[in-house]
Amino acid sequence: MTVTIDPAAVAARFRDELRAQLAEERTPLRLVGILAGEHGPSHTYATYAQRACMELGIHFELRKFPRLEAEAAIRSANADPAVHGIMVYYPIFATEHDAYLRDLVDPGKDIEGLHSSWARLLYENRRFVDAEKTRKAILPCTPLAILKLVEAAGFFHERGRPLEGRTVSVFNRSEVVGRPLASMLAHDGAHVYSFDVDGPLAFEPPPDADGAHRLSESPITRAEALAASDIVITGVPSKDFPLIRGDELRAGSLCINFSTYRNFADDISGKAACFVPRVGPMTVLMVIRNALRLRRNAQGG
Amino acid sequence: MTVTIDPAAVAARFRDELRAQLAEERTPLRLVGILAGEHGPSHTYATYAQRACMELGIHFELRKFPRLEAEAAIRSANADPAVHGIMVYYPIFATEHDAYLRDLVDPGKDIEGLHSSWARLLYENRRFVDAEKTRKAILPCTPLAILKLVEAAGFFHERGRPLEGRTVSVFNRSEVVGRPLASMLAHDGAHVYSFDVDGPLAFEPPPDADGAHRLSESPITRAEALAASDIVITGVPSKDFPLIRGDELRAGSLCINFSTYRNFADDISGKAACFVPRVGPMTVLMVIRNALRLRRNAQGG
Repeated sequence: MTVTIDPAAVAARFRDELRAQLAEERTPLRLVGILAGEHGPSHTYATYAQRACMELGIHFELRKFPRLEAEAAIRSANADPAVHGIMVYYPIFATEHDAYLRDLVDPGKDIEGLHSSWARLLYENRRFVDAEKTRKAILPCTPLAILKLVEAAGFFHERGRPLEGRTVSVFNRSEVVGRPLASMLAHDGAHVYSFDVDGPLAFEPPPDADGAHRLSESPITRAEALAASDIVITGVPSKDFPLIRGDELRAGSLCINFSTYRNFADDISGKAACFVPRVGPMTVLMVIRNALRLRRNAQGG
Repeated sequence: MTVTIDPAAVAARFRDELRAQLAEERTPLRLVGILAGEHGPSHTYATYAQRACMELGIHFELRKFPRLEAEAAIRSANADPAVHGIMVYYPIFATEHDAYLRDLVDPGKDIEGLHSSWARLLYENRRFVDAEKTRKAILPCTPLAILKLVEAAGFFHERGRPLEGRTVSVFNRSEVVGRPLASMLAHDGAHVYSFDVDGPLAFEPPPDADGAHRLSESPITRAEALAASDIVITGVPSKDFPLIRGDELRAGSLCINFSTYRNFADDISGKAACFVPRVGPMTVLMVIRNALRLRRNAQGG
């Protein structure tokens, strides 16, 4: 029997933890969501964020604009000292222009952890912003949510590196999820096969505790990687992706899909130990967690 | 009769100017080209750069790597005080990973002018790096090369803003060429229609001399834009783009193609006043011009 894990149930536990931490803040967190353009399910995500914030006593203001006003909206929220955190809902242009906008957000308010300065710290496995190690770096919200779900599914070791010796396949190598996720998994001890249109890469654990992941081209096939994987994570935004079938999986594996498309066939049930069909409810909480961390950093770490 | 302009002939004039400026330098410029991955005509471009540098007494070292070593190669060149400028040949991954690499190059050595910090100055129409206006900002090499070719074709006014009152259509809105080019044209006084997969935008001249271009969604069609344009610039990297035909053009217009694909039909001959079939030879010289400027900035402006 495959256990289906509802990310909303896992999120409920994190919500309680966050509520306790938020209670220590003297004034409420004030977050701004920027919704521009008409693409995709952004409005739904924004509604989730609004609800999650409301439940935690966080002020969340959703601001809507035509796409050409997104840049000015970001600059304005950057400049406003009353705004602690900014979420921008992509796609806006659905071209590389979106990456330009992503890097316009002040890293100190980038609660989604998408700015390239956060990515650089992540890839170097640097956990702190400062040499004195008083201000913690933040991690991108969706990869962080996925790691928390891997832990909740019981796939973390209690001692040592939590994914030591595990093999993981990740189908997606986007700059916002798949690539940082592969690096984070490797930093936690996993051997990761990362699949994307430009061929498989292997992310290997750092040889020493403070090092960064090692990267190599990999000749592995999808079939070989799936047969070897304890954990399979997908985020393929396409109807044309051949669904991952039960007979491709290793028995007892954990399957997680963070795409809004189906990436797994129904017959994984019975073969996989656990299936997490979506990640969104956890992502929102990781954004709030990042918001709290960035605010504490701003207050001096 | 349509005059075909050979960019190499225009480049020859700039080479003489640059030679005179380079003669004032006490030690030769040292540039590094980073060639990684197997995509596209990068090796040819690198050879052009090598030849142009040799002719000008500039030291140019081409370094070749597997794609996974590009990042370390950029970091190493950034850190080496003996390297004045870095060119990276894209595509390397041909995914958004390339934009990550682009921003790893030290802006002070980014002689192609592709770093997002240069893009931000450009879009804000800020011509200097510093408030004291001693160190000039640099412009991205291909858009700059195109503007020099527009000037060489006789389409610049001698007084006031050089493109005041001109209408320009640009087919391409990439972050490295089409979008910065549209902004630069508007800063020079032109009304620009920018076409890309996500719909036409209008870039309008700033209302005052120090301001930035204004941007709006445009309902204009390709046919209307071409019929109104004094200058048509294309950079569509696709065989499927319907070639621009002579009957779509305004008589006496200037046509420039910076793509490696054909974007204009043969029958533009006779309708256009001038045709510039490629831009590459000018781009290389603009890179060298930027290298000189960045070195002078480093020496204190």
